[in-house]
Amino acid sequence: MSKSNPAPEVPRPALEGRRLRRLGIDTGDERVAYLRSDSPICRGEGFNARSRVELRMGERRLTAMLDVVHGELLAADEAGLSESAWAALQPEPDQRVTFAHAPSVDSLALVRRKIYGHALDAAQFAAVVDDIAARRYSGEELAAFIAACSDGRLSDEEVAALTGAMVDGGQRLHWDRPPVVDKHCIGGLPGNRTTPIVVAIVTALGLVMPKTSSRAITSPAGTADTMEMLAPVALDLAQMRRAVERTGGCIVWGGSINLSPADDVLIRIERALDIDSEGQLVASVLSKKIAAGSTHVLIDIPVGPSAKVRDARQAASLSRLMQRTAAGFGMQLQTLVTDGSQPVGRGIGPALEAHDVLAVLRRQADAPADLRARALALAAALLRLGGLAEGEDAAQALARRTLESGKAWTQFQAICEAQGGLREPGQAAHRYPIAAAASGRVACIDNRQLSRVAKLAGAPLAPLAGLTLEARLGDAVAAGQPLFTVHAQSRGELAYALEYVSRHPRIVEVAP
Amino acid sequence: MSKSNPAPEVPRPALEGRRLRRLGIDTGDERVAYLRSDSPICRGEGFNARSRVELRMGERRLTAMLDVVHGELLAADEAGLSESAWAALQPEPDQRVTFAHAPSVDSLALVRRKIYGHALDAAQFAAVVDDIAARRYSGEELAAFIAACSDGRLSDEEVAALTGAMVDGGQRLHWDRPPVVDKHCIGGLPGNRTTPIVVAIVTALGLVMPKTSSRAITSPAGTADTMEMLAPVALDLAQMRRAVERTGGCIVWGGSINLSPADDVLIRIERALDIDSEGQLVASVLSKKIAAGSTHVLIDIPVGPSAKVRDARQAASLSRLMQRTAAGFGMQLQTLVTDGSQPVGRGIGPALEAHDVLAVLRRQADAPADLRARALALAAALLRLGGLAEGEDAAQALARRTLESGKAWTQFQAICEAQGGLREPGQAAHRYPIAAAASGRVACIDNRQLSRVAKLAGAPLAPLAGLTLEARLGDAVAAGQPLFTVHAQSRGELAYALEYVSRHPRIVEVAP
Repeated sequence: MSKSNPAPEVPRPALEGRRLRRLGIDTGDERVAYLRSDSPICRGEGFNARSRVELRMGERRLTAMLDVVHGELLAADEAGLSESAWAALQPEPDQRVTFAHAPSVDSLALVRRKIYGHALDAAQFAAVVDDIAARRYSGEELAAFIAACSDGRLSDEEVAALTGAMVDGGQRLHWDRPPVVDKHCIGGLPGNRTTPIVVAIVTALGLVMPKTSSRAITSPAGTADTMEMLAPVALDLAQMRRAVERTGGCIVWGGSINLSPADDVLIRIERALDIDSEGQLVASVLSKKIAAGSTHVLIDIPVGPSAKVRDARQAASLSRLMQRTAAGFGMQLQTLVTDGSQPVGRGIGPALEAHDVLAVLRRQADAPADLRARALALAAALLRLGGLAEGEDAAQALARRTLESGKAWTQFQAICEAQGGLREPGQAAHRYPIAAAASGRVACIDNRQLSRVAKLAGAPLAPLAGLTLEARLGDAVAAGQPLFTVHAQSRGELAYALEYVSRHPRIVEVAP
Repeated sequence: MSKSNPAPEVPRPALEGRRLRRLGIDTGDERVAYLRSDSPICRGEGFNARSRVELRMGERRLTAMLDVVHGELLAADEAGLSESAWAALQPEPDQRVTFAHAPSVDSLALVRRKIYGHALDAAQFAAVVDDIAARRYSGEELAAFIAACSDGRLSDEEVAALTGAMVDGGQRLHWDRPPVVDKHCIGGLPGNRTTPIVVAIVTALGLVMPKTSSRAITSPAGTADTMEMLAPVALDLAQMRRAVERTGGCIVWGGSINLSPADDVLIRIERALDIDSEGQLVASVLSKKIAAGSTHVLIDIPVGPSAKVRDARQAASLSRLMQRTAAGFGMQLQTLVTDGSQPVGRGIGPALEAHDVLAVLRRQADAPADLRARALALAAALLRLGGLAEGEDAAQALARRTLESGKAWTQFQAICEAQGGLREPGQAAHRYPIAAAASGRVACIDNRQLSRVAKLAGAPLAPLAGLTLEARLGDAVAAGQPLFTVHAQSRGELAYALEYVSRHPRIVEVAP
């Protein structure tokens, strides 16, 4: 075949780079670029609003969504970047960027295969996961992939292949002191901050537990937010490694460690869609644990009507799939079904939960008994799993002794020092108790509405904000006795939270 | 049960409305609002980037996505709106808007049911479709619904239920002169603008054909874009009705008629995902035809390697499902499988395709024979379907006579006058022929790359831009003879298109 179309001799259009402008627009996880509609690049390339574009700066490439600007928000030779795009590209002052159509993403054909009901193999999942981790998928494309992989649509082999692909896409840690233990809690119970206590107990006894945790996405606090009230958590891999080598443990934010980066992308969409399919949940949790180098993992499954897992049958099915998948990666995994009917501890919000953690570790008389009991049960299970105790009674006794002797508290201080220094969380300036209107017994606590109050009060961005629960299910309360107290850093935020409380009279319900 | 939480006596925060500012940011179909991160409303309501918010202006409500602004792009008491949000809300100067969390969308539980593999009934599809049409779903939620309804996941009953729900969600037209005929082409062949010719022929003979068409989304021209070069097409319902009552036909833009509005929302996501599942395609096409009051519908299915339908088996399956579904709504439907191997006519781009249409209607000697033949075949099929001719030969002869006698041209001019006046499309100032490098025969034409050249040259926004094909499959060409000519309204756009041509030597491939 001959070459049919000779290169026409016309001047090539000037494709010189755009000056970049940080517009200060926070578009969440989505990376957005802005170009003028009347710029030669926009017209010439045929870019439309919501085109996927590729930004090129030297050797660097970034895929972004395009918003097209009419008028004077940008100069004709400027390109704007959203906060997320700016953070991803990190341009130097005066660096220029050229724009092109984003290259087509071949693995989307595999997503369509999955949508049309075909199984994918390990290499195909790897191709999809690589493109997801590199942020080449739009939110719509991610959502379609998630829907296509929902319950019953992934075989056991596919769950294992997806898990493996997610591990291979990121950092992978190796520790030379097995067993390396870890724990994970499925689905949020407000206030359930056992992790810092568990890490302190089991590492005080010699197990290795390099724990990475997440920040809140939709809740008033994540474990990383709570821990940050007690010590720095945004450690890089080298800093994390030093802390673990010195003390056997850490509690750091997973965001700067880059384990299973595709999971970080997928999980935001899954939460937004409120889709928790078993196969994806297993791949998400286990890929992080495998990548972290864990050999023995304990999974806490709270079961309750407003928890993520609603009944024992669902817990058993999830448990089986987790165990089968973990076994394929040579990891020992145990699950523990716990009570998920009400919040754990007293505080909800980063600092208020940190106070609960400190109270348990410092053996204060007013430490929340339920948080202490849950932490001891989890620590005991990990001690057995890690081979430090045989039988439930012995493990429980060992865990309790380690806490009561102050050994866990000493160890926790050492971990905080290794992470950059122990801090004492403060108190919010504005507090307002919500009292029972009449005497009776606490019949019902709405976890969802409680979380909403804590968030309206400012948590987690205002780290001292949130609420403290003053009565628990079944408690007898007298009229006028506080049910919970709202904490806020500003008067305005207090008012917002209280306005919500006034419109929702059954957040904590008292039956006569 | 007693009311537990008395309304606390604290001042309610000032929730006065925001001043609105049109930021000039085109975010495509997505409606976006912008608030300052340090505004009391943002902090107080706990809004984050990408929160779904509800804008309230008097009685009006609009769901939008929130982008959070840091810094000086907005004043503290201002809220910004994207172009699409501004168009949807149409605020008066100085009107103020309050913000709230978008109410939760109950039908998303049904989408999750569908994702988990359960069937939905008619009432459940109606709930989903209502919320889609009201723009209460995010792009991710739409994508998840589309993936959950993909091939094999909708029963025949569900396709019918979805179709009915889409009809019920919008305007529905009634005509007192049956039969009311319509045609639809599945999947775009560049240049395939038979519609204006077909409407002119069959309405000249007394059939009623109130045709609504779409504008280009990803192609160089939609039928509405082409027709707009010949007459106004943005008619409202009353204007459309007047045109049809006067002449029996029209060719208008469907965007201002509001037939099956959920389809307009879904189709953009389906195209972006490149998912064409049979069930959704059928619901999409038939819901528009049923809502338009059509009683007899002809479906043109071009089949070819770069067409939407690739082979005869796929065409037959689609054809069966269309017929079954249409029958349930009392509509007569016939399908016609046609050649989809190369573009139709000579021009690609709004004005260039309009010239082809005029040439056929005016019986010019240089009128494209393939466009004329396709239009006659479709018109003949509609004449038989509408009961005006019996047998293929008689129908073909009647259609040809109507065209050749000038009756169709007279009728077309009457339709254009009824829509607001016939226009003559112009010519682009810049034209550049692409010549064959060597002699031979045209062996292959890449439809996708041809469309790309036309779009780079400016189509459809620059309506005179595009290209004209000067050789067809199998034609013998001499070295230096033009294969196609690029048309552009500006020198810059011509250069962009030619630059692309120089990098893609096989757009029209000549074999020795």
